[in-house]
Amino acid sequence: MPLPKTIKSERLYHGRIFDLVIEDMEEQDGNIRKCEIISHPGGGVVIPIFDNGDILLVRQYRYPFKTFVLEAPAGKLEPNEDPLDCAKRELKEETGYTAEKFIQLTAMYTTPGFCNEVLHVYLATGLKKSELGQNLDDGEQSLTVESLPLTQAIEMITKGEIVDGKTIVGILLAEQKMKQSH
Amino acid sequence: MPLPKTIKSERLYHGRIFDLVIEDMEEQDGNIRKCEIISHPGGGVVIPIFDNGDILLVRQYRYPFKTFVLEAPAGKLEPNEDPLDCAKRELKEETGYTAEKFIQLTAMYTTPGFCNEVLHVYLATGLKKSELGQNLDDGEQSLTVESLPLTQAIEMITKGEIVDGKTIVGILLAEQKMKQSH
Repeated sequence: MPLPKTIKSERLYHGRIFDLVIEDMEEQDGNIRKCEIISHPGGGVVIPIFDNGDILLVRQYRYPFKTFVLEAPAGKLEPNEDPLDCAKRELKEETGYTAEKFIQLTAMYTTPGFCNEVLHVYLATGLKKSELGQNLDDGEQSLTVESLPLTQAIEMITKGEIVDGKTIVGILLAEQKMKQSH
Repeated sequence: MPLPKTIKSERLYHGRIFDLVIEDMEEQDGNIRKCEIISHPGGGVVIPIFDNGDILLVRQYRYPFKTFVLEAPAGKLEPNEDPLDCAKRELKEETGYTAEKFIQLTAMYTTPGFCNEVLHVYLATGLKKSELGQNLDDGEQSLTVESLPLTQAIEMITKGEIVDGKTIVGILLAEQKMKQSH
């Protein structure tokens, strides 16, 4: 079956976080469809686990929901940045911690129906507090760091108290990975 | 700590799947920040599990990635639609199956940094093939249905062969839920 073909691509909005692109796609049956795409650079996500089994999360104000959301440390890729470097940078900036070991858990699509964002999710162990501490971006000034037992985090997923997609994926895959290595 | 306040809200784009809204937010420190928000109606997601333990997934062309992606049946909420009704409708439209029992697994945020999309994820059991069969939307004509053992789906997550966020979340939570009930 031939794939749909892009006939025309127009950037309607160039933003700080994403671009909005409209593409005319020629379908298999010859029809032209207008497709709305949010073009996003992707990002790095870290599931930081202490030696005692606690997980480190961040709580920050998320303006699309007008509330605080408990999430894994994460951030956007800089141009040409390696996803692992991004993950290390975001862990340090948001929590003030560095990690000895990073293992990739997945590279996930957040919402493939309209957005090309890919998040590279890592399990980070061997955590050490860096001397420099946090280094928060603009708009992250309200971010706070919380640590809790991994088992409690899993309960919070089941109860609907942790609802962020990348955080649920990362925690459940980290738990799986750590069971395997024991 | 006072929450940031919306000073101004402007819709830059009104789309088929989402709107693009720019909000001026007054931060705690009095600074005004321009925030980019993708406003999305949210959706229903179904993890359909057969009595023999197989899971039903759909493979469809996703134009943001220019490739086919293996995902749970899912779709956008219609105006004022109950998320469970949406899930039932999408299961039937995309796979031609109905289910006797739906259990909510979570209501997840796909990418809360810039988008207010909430996906309501359900485990569906007691599957029955409906007489009417599939009823695909425009642009879903290339969608195909696949069933595979749940254990194989979990392996595919670990190997990076299933990468869609809602599908990973749904499968891992469904597995947890089914273990509890045995």
